[in-house]
Amino acid sequence: MTYRPEQARLRAHCLAVFLLLLTAVGNYGGGPGMHASWLPALALPRLAAPTPQAPDPLPSWNARASKKAITDFVNRVTREGGPDFVPAAERIATFDNDGTLWSEQPGYFQLSFALDRVKALAPQHPEWKTMQPFKGVLEGDMKAVAASGERGLMEIIAATHTGNTTEEFEKIVTDWITTARHPKTKRLYTDMVFQPMLELLAYLRANGFKTFIVSGGGVEFMRPWTQRVYGIPPEQVVGSRAKVKYEVRNGTPVLVRLAEVDHVDDKAGKPVGIHQMIGRRPIAAFGNSDGDFEMLEWVTSAKGPRFGLIVHHTDAEREWAYDRTSHIGQLARGLDEAPKRSWTVVDMKQDWKVIYPFQK
Amino acid sequence: MTYRPEQARLRAHCLAVFLLLLTAVGNYGGGPGMHASWLPALALPRLAAPTPQAPDPLPSWNARASKKAITDFVNRVTREGGPDFVPAAERIATFDNDGTLWSEQPGYFQLSFALDRVKALAPQHPEWKTMQPFKGVLEGDMKAVAASGERGLMEIIAATHTGNTTEEFEKIVTDWITTARHPKTKRLYTDMVFQPMLELLAYLRANGFKTFIVSGGGVEFMRPWTQRVYGIPPEQVVGSRAKVKYEVRNGTPVLVRLAEVDHVDDKAGKPVGIHQMIGRRPIAAFGNSDGDFEMLEWVTSAKGPRFGLIVHHTDAEREWAYDRTSHIGQLARGLDEAPKRSWTVVDMKQDWKVIYPFQK
Repeated sequence: MTYRPEQARLRAHCLAVFLLLLTAVGNYGGGPGMHASWLPALALPRLAAPTPQAPDPLPSWNARASKKAITDFVNRVTREGGPDFVPAAERIATFDNDGTLWSEQPGYFQLSFALDRVKALAPQHPEWKTMQPFKGVLEGDMKAVAASGERGLMEIIAATHTGNTTEEFEKIVTDWITTARHPKTKRLYTDMVFQPMLELLAYLRANGFKTFIVSGGGVEFMRPWTQRVYGIPPEQVVGSRAKVKYEVRNGTPVLVRLAEVDHVDDKAGKPVGIHQMIGRRPIAAFGNSDGDFEMLEWVTSAKGPRFGLIVHHTDAEREWAYDRTSHIGQLARGLDEAPKRSWTVVDMKQDWKVIYPFQK
Repeated sequence: MTYRPEQARLRAHCLAVFLLLLTAVGNYGGGPGMHASWLPALALPRLAAPTPQAPDPLPSWNARASKKAITDFVNRVTREGGPDFVPAAERIATFDNDGTLWSEQPGYFQLSFALDRVKALAPQHPEWKTMQPFKGVLEGDMKAVAASGERGLMEIIAATHTGNTTEEFEKIVTDWITTARHPKTKRLYTDMVFQPMLELLAYLRANGFKTFIVSGGGVEFMRPWTQRVYGIPPEQVVGSRAKVKYEVRNGTPVLVRLAEVDHVDDKAGKPVGIHQMIGRRPIAAFGNSDGDFEMLEWVTSAKGPRFGLIVHHTDAEREWAYDRTSHIGQLARGLDEAPKRSWTVVDMKQDWKVIYPFQK
């Protein structure tokens, strides 16, 4: 299927995703960076041996209020006969991905994927040498890319994310995620997941929770690796998605990815995605930006024990520090309303002993 | 939210569901019925005691080719070290609902729900006394309902299925499903599930399979009771769905069901729904009509061990007999192509010792 620009026309409600990516492009030219000073974190001492009677399920979390809030909640909902007991089947927990389970600076990792795809596809598109925004991507001129605006970003997404079959796309993602390196750390992107959150996922599952991802990122960009990296199977990943179309090609059925957005799983789209895919309200939600606000609101406003948590990026040395004014992962309303909504706010710098697994 | 007819305008691709329902209305006036002669089935002898060494996991299945095909497949994919071994995480099985897990005659059970809802809502709509298709429903004049055509059915669906919140709708479905009775058997609809298929679901799960429903019926019509009746949780139910919108009403967030179809989970929509919600290809699929053809095709055309099964309604005495010319659950292409595609065709009359659990 050839790329046809006219297919890239998208409906108004689809713009959110592209705007998100657009702001991310801006950040590639500067913004908060990772300083060499985070390297000493690698030399962190081994964690103290756990007490023999109860191994600590969250060893990378410092013994502070955030950790206590988590374990108190889990103890309450799992105590059979207790007033807040929740049957295992209803222990649904939803996690944002970008900025909550892995880093999202200096730009969403999926944007790096899209830019790398432009480079990989360039030999088949000689016209891109003179056509923005592709020219800008190929020449590393991110200002030109940003100047192409929303329309330019839409063209990049359409050219790199659609027109192929779901199986072709899965292979492309798998190849990229196992080889591409982050511009600052030079690590695989999947190395840049948060060790304390991996422990949290495992802890919840050990207590009968079913863990889901509910991310603004593309669902087909995540599913190929979430089982391996997070222990979350494809059927428990909710995300933004393109429309797909069933076709039989020479006797072989395929699903073709169309240049039309089917669902934007961000902001008010998150409770909608949860409803479509999970079909019941989670009892715990974890996010890091105002894109997660409605998910946290939806999850924590129902009756019974509920838990909401925001990861606040406060660690400019070991990761990044950003919140109210960031173009990526902006967090303002969440910070303002967390206290009155009894949401736990994780102070990354204070609460986490290590950030990434390779620092253990 | 008041019902506004102008909201009922639906896109072209949404018509399939309503056409399905329309054909069902026709059948309420006649078509294949259930004869009193099925009653002796209640007196079926108790099944023979299983051999002590290996209790039969499918006691309601006669020892014929269909049963052997099922157990052979399960043995192959679960035999560790064998050539066809499939890791448990990939043992995904998808089941159609109407006509596959429960009966669908003389009309889809969800249509009975819609008609009952019209009656329940009538006091709030005095104008319905003179307005078709509502007048026809209230007077039991199904010919008039059918004469209102597709537009009339769309109005019934919009009036009975949308405009409320997801929680309100869940309560309505739950109340109905636990009280409404089938017009012929006078049983609860959830009593009219197929005992052999309940055994099959349990057998697959006992062998590490994850079982999903993939139905043309409304997902919110099924989720309130599938755990109790089939052992399938809400997050493993794929179906047709209305668009929903997130709103905060006086500080309380709700999801409002809009009169706009989001996904029609029928025919080529089934592989699409599977991809959206499950994100990987199942290894086994179970259906009963040509609405399941593409799901069976998608599932069984991939590499590795695959299993496709069609329930053929051949039992006019204990259930219903219909296939090629039926307006409901039409089955023609599936019957024609099953042999060359190696799909198992269950002859309900020959293969099943009992149909419903209350006949055990």
